[in-house]
Amino acid sequence: MTRSGPFVSDVPTAEATAAWRAACAAAGCPERTGTEHVPVAGAVGRVLAEPVWAVRSSPAFDSAAMDGIAVRAAETVGAADTTPVLLADFAVVDTGDPMPVGYDAVVMREHVHHTADGRAELRAAVPPYEHVRSIGEDISATELLLPAGHRMRPVDVAAAAAAGAVAPAVHRRPHVVVIPTGDEIRPVGTEPGPGEILDTNSIMLVAQAREAGCTAAATEIVPDDPERITAALRAAAAGADLVVLIAGSSAGRDDHTAGVVAGAGTLAVHGVAVRPGHPVVLGVVEGGTPVLGAPGYPVSAALTFEIFALPLLAALEGAAPRERPSTTARLARKLASVIGSDDWVRVRLGRVGGEVVATPLPRGAGVLTSLVRADGLLVVPAGVEGHHAGERVRVELLRGLAEIARTIVAIGSHDLVLDMAASALRSADPLLTLASSNVGSLGGLVALRDGLCHLAGSHLLDPATGAYTLPYVDRLLGDLDVAVVRLVHRDQGLIVAPGNPLGLTGIDDLVRPGLRYVNRQRGAGTRALLDHELGARGVDPSAVPGYAREEHTHLAVAAAVAAGRADAGMGILAAARAFGLDFVPVAQEPYDLVVRADALDDPLLAPLWALLDDPAFRGGIEALGGYSCAETGRRVR
Amino acid sequence: MTRSGPFVSDVPTAEATAAWRAACAAAGCPERTGTEHVPVAGAVGRVLAEPVWAVRSSPAFDSAAMDGIAVRAAETVGAADTTPVLLADFAVVDTGDPMPVGYDAVVMREHVHHTADGRAELRAAVPPYEHVRSIGEDISATELLLPAGHRMRPVDVAAAAAAGAVAPAVHRRPHVVVIPTGDEIRPVGTEPGPGEILDTNSIMLVAQAREAGCTAAATEIVPDDPERITAALRAAAAGADLVVLIAGSSAGRDDHTAGVVAGAGTLAVHGVAVRPGHPVVLGVVEGGTPVLGAPGYPVSAALTFEIFALPLLAALEGAAPRERPSTTARLARKLASVIGSDDWVRVRLGRVGGEVVATPLPRGAGVLTSLVRADGLLVVPAGVEGHHAGERVRVELLRGLAEIARTIVAIGSHDLVLDMAASALRSADPLLTLASSNVGSLGGLVALRDGLCHLAGSHLLDPATGAYTLPYVDRLLGDLDVAVVRLVHRDQGLIVAPGNPLGLTGIDDLVRPGLRYVNRQRGAGTRALLDHELGARGVDPSAVPGYAREEHTHLAVAAAVAAGRADAGMGILAAARAFGLDFVPVAQEPYDLVVRADALDDPLLAPLWALLDDPAFRGGIEALGGYSCAETGRRVR
Repeated sequence: MTRSGPFVSDVPTAEATAAWRAACAAAGCPERTGTEHVPVAGAVGRVLAEPVWAVRSSPAFDSAAMDGIAVRAAETVGAADTTPVLLADFAVVDTGDPMPVGYDAVVMREHVHHTADGRAELRAAVPPYEHVRSIGEDISATELLLPAGHRMRPVDVAAAAAAGAVAPAVHRRPHVVVIPTGDEIRPVGTEPGPGEILDTNSIMLVAQAREAGCTAAATEIVPDDPERITAALRAAAAGADLVVLIAGSSAGRDDHTAGVVAGAGTLAVHGVAVRPGHPVVLGVVEGGTPVLGAPGYPVSAALTFEIFALPLLAALEGAAPRERPSTTARLARKLASVIGSDDWVRVRLGRVGGEVVATPLPRGAGVLTSLVRADGLLVVPAGVEGHHAGERVRVELLRGLAEIARTIVAIGSHDLVLDMAASALRSADPLLTLASSNVGSLGGLVALRDGLCHLAGSHLLDPATGAYTLPYVDRLLGDLDVAVVRLVHRDQGLIVAPGNPLGLTGIDDLVRPGLRYVNRQRGAGTRALLDHELGARGVDPSAVPGYAREEHTHLAVAAAVAAGRADAGMGILAAARAFGLDFVPVAQEPYDLVVRADALDDPLLAPLWALLDDPAFRGGIEALGGYSCAETGRRVR
Repeated sequence: MTRSGPFVSDVPTAEATAAWRAACAAAGCPERTGTEHVPVAGAVGRVLAEPVWAVRSSPAFDSAAMDGIAVRAAETVGAADTTPVLLADFAVVDTGDPMPVGYDAVVMREHVHHTADGRAELRAAVPPYEHVRSIGEDISATELLLPAGHRMRPVDVAAAAAAGAVAPAVHRRPHVVVIPTGDEIRPVGTEPGPGEILDTNSIMLVAQAREAGCTAAATEIVPDDPERITAALRAAAAGADLVVLIAGSSAGRDDHTAGVVAGAGTLAVHGVAVRPGHPVVLGVVEGGTPVLGAPGYPVSAALTFEIFALPLLAALEGAAPRERPSTTARLARKLASVIGSDDWVRVRLGRVGGEVVATPLPRGAGVLTSLVRADGLLVVPAGVEGHHAGERVRVELLRGLAEIARTIVAIGSHDLVLDMAASALRSADPLLTLASSNVGSLGGLVALRDGLCHLAGSHLLDPATGAYTLPYVDRLLGDLDVAVVRLVHRDQGLIVAPGNPLGLTGIDDLVRPGLRYVNRQRGAGTRALLDHELGARGVDPSAVPGYAREEHTHLAVAAAVAAGRADAGMGILAAARAFGLDFVPVAQEPYDLVVRADALDDPLLAPLWALLDDPAFRGGIEALGGYSCAETGRRVR
């Protein structure tokens, strides 16, 4: 078995795809899956291997297109209001009835007066074939109904059946086998121990394959043992059109994929110039089964499958690959991108001020929620260094534009109450989304100023006045007509380990030598509160050990304390309680929603304002503890 | 049982939907289907009944984000090229490994030099948490991961599993039962007798329901008997969230749906202001099951399901209904629409001259191929009278724009060879479509002049000169730089019944009294040929019985003769042969493709030009009989 080198290369995507396809062709991989005949009703979603030529006409006979009477058109000539024609020779027909032999037109029921002696009185002539559906009006026998390579939709199977197709020839669905690898990987449904990771990638990749029209299954999890991975790969390849090996695709000590693929067949590519996804393995197993070695980071796994597997699977079925609609959006902030790699950036989209705005989501390959929360994908090609803030960019859509237009975009500080509002709004109206990006209070106000969001959640303390948010609104948004609506009052304090083992009593204890504090990011209101409290005591921030360590949400701070990675961090009671931690109150602060004044009358936001007045919603918040809804919904400016 | 009146009403769509929903609510129909818990891996495509809140963080521990060594950041301070730091205390880690206790940063393998005595030499300091993936970087416990009402995608189930969801609560899939009715309806898979129709609507509607995420089944076909339809409806309603009764929704003698629904519950609406689809029945069965009475015309059935059933089914699952992307297109020709009804017009789309052009397809409710061939839907609202040619209109997309951009739009005369070319091109490249609209040779040249198509198929005879196509090109396209490429020579003649029972020998016999001729439409080259032949003989067209009877394709003419509805029609041998008919040759004519000159170098059309030179393709055409490929592919101008 050859062993790959210690570093992965950076082959451009198109080149990598071509090299993979060439290796597959050389190894005798079939270009298309085989052909099978399926009953026409079961052909929905399948790709035609042969065209459907009509063998029957539809309709197969001339028929009445209206309810009325069948007549001979020639016998109606001259009929008019003043010169009605009386017909004894006619036949009553309903829509769809075959035309009785000898008749060539239909007079609508509404235009016929039946006389007492059983004749039909007409007051207008009709041309031949009036209201007659001709044979073959829909489909003429022998014409091409559907070309090979067409994926059958409901209307297609109906039309094919009408044209006489009984069991059209379709390509066999490609079969994908996913092999999860890794000593630390445990099946979904089990409780992972310390250092263990759930095999969420397998269920995702299997679902992606099925969504693409394939059959798919995952094998048992294989440990980091090249022999066992090789055996699993060979076994899977025997019955698959594509094998996906998860994880181990890089070049670390436990990364065996490249070596295993080289040993079991041909290693075509190890490393592609795409981020996330870079350490990808593309190869082919002896006997002719393509193999994709996907990185273990979930975003890399998902995108790698999309970039490399989906086009291959579509080609195997002889079909056009899925195509996503796209739109133009204004980029909310500067986006840097490394030259030399295609950069797949997940973005949130919202319609703000009449324009679609794209806000980049976290770009880490491990941040699966960036894909979950994404409304679109922005691909920055290898040759482009990035984009300026405000630039118009092309975005592939993951959600429909109408849904995006019904999304309230919140940028600013994070609070659980926003999550609860998002959930309540969606439950009441499946079309309504409240999407929040957590960038801190200051970032939210700037985003509001720049027209990038509908509302900014803020709890910014002004150290000079001791007032919250309003001084910043004056300073930053002075020339805008804005309204400020109180969301909630909440307790802020020190989140500490259960039992408060260090016996922290307040801000004064944060300068203790050896203490590991965890801070919030610059611009966060909670950080401003700490700075205010430190300043009031004349304490230099650098005296707090860990001041430079930043987390972006209350929950991340609590998680750090819960994990024993930090001794204390400032945050809200709800976050402490969620992790079973202790809490040392420091202050009660108002958390406000800042909006442009016209947002108060914007139909999009109306359900949010109504929710703030809903006693059930308020009750739910206060039940969390650490919150007061006494002023919820009050306009404070 | 109440019997509905003889005429159907014209309730506006939104009003009809509201009335239906109100009747459903009054009858106790549940607003949502029930809730069930499914294993997270099986939740793809399901709609959350409850939000997914994270109960675990992901990652659940700090881990190395790179292959390298774990260090204490503080011990690297001062490291530089000139002042390397030597560490004895470090731990080798691979990407994904939990951070060993006590270490707070990772130095990438590439930046570490291991000394002979086992120490690690660093030439740069690292800050704390460098290359460390923090606990909760992706998901923090207790945060909202997914709101209720969200339809789960592959990334969602993976994220939900990572967040600790084991069996999320989802809405039960709605169950749809389709009841086909009609004495003349026969199951798909059987051979229909004279006057019988295959039940293609059931397989289409069941497939539409499944595509919408529902379970669905069709019952046996029920005859036109109100008692039996009522029994079938009650039985189906007992186990369904929606029943669809097909056909009988109008007000003819055999139209029982409205009466049956009124008798079995509440008839909310009979007749909606939408075309096609007008005679629709909306009601609810006692006990609380909505029922949709869909018209039997296939386009009406499909659109009625889309307009009324899909939003109801989405609401039952608590989800947003499917949303189609849309685009702006230039309308190829004037589109009249009746005031007072929403008009759902099927259109073909093509990118011609840098703009998307929409050509309306046949509008009959029975022309299912208009939906099969449609690239988009253009809804003309009830209040709009129609659109001018060239107007920019909004079109809902049924195919992706990239696919549409790879569509060769052919407008003009029909020939089987174009169908064969379409099929061959698609087989070679699943992304390439050749879409032809048959409007006759003259219509094609006009469309080419107006920039509505890439090529016009023409075999127009100039009676004055006896020359084909070129005189018309001069006359109509004089100011355009066009090229004319020969597709084929083909025989034209009289298509007659097997054995030529009337003993027709040529054009001279067409004036026989009692003969039933079937003509082609105005502008068709075949009609011009007839006119030329008649003119050469000094025969007035009105002397030909049936001259006014028009069909739009060769095959439709042959079908009319095959059905015994006509005695003769002019057409090509291939069409006669397809129906087993006889053929009396009249002339051999060139069939040409007219294109703008720059189309010869257009990459979109290149595969077509290559195909015309392919001996296998030519052989297949000549094997049909009645064609000569001697000049196929030759540029005749």
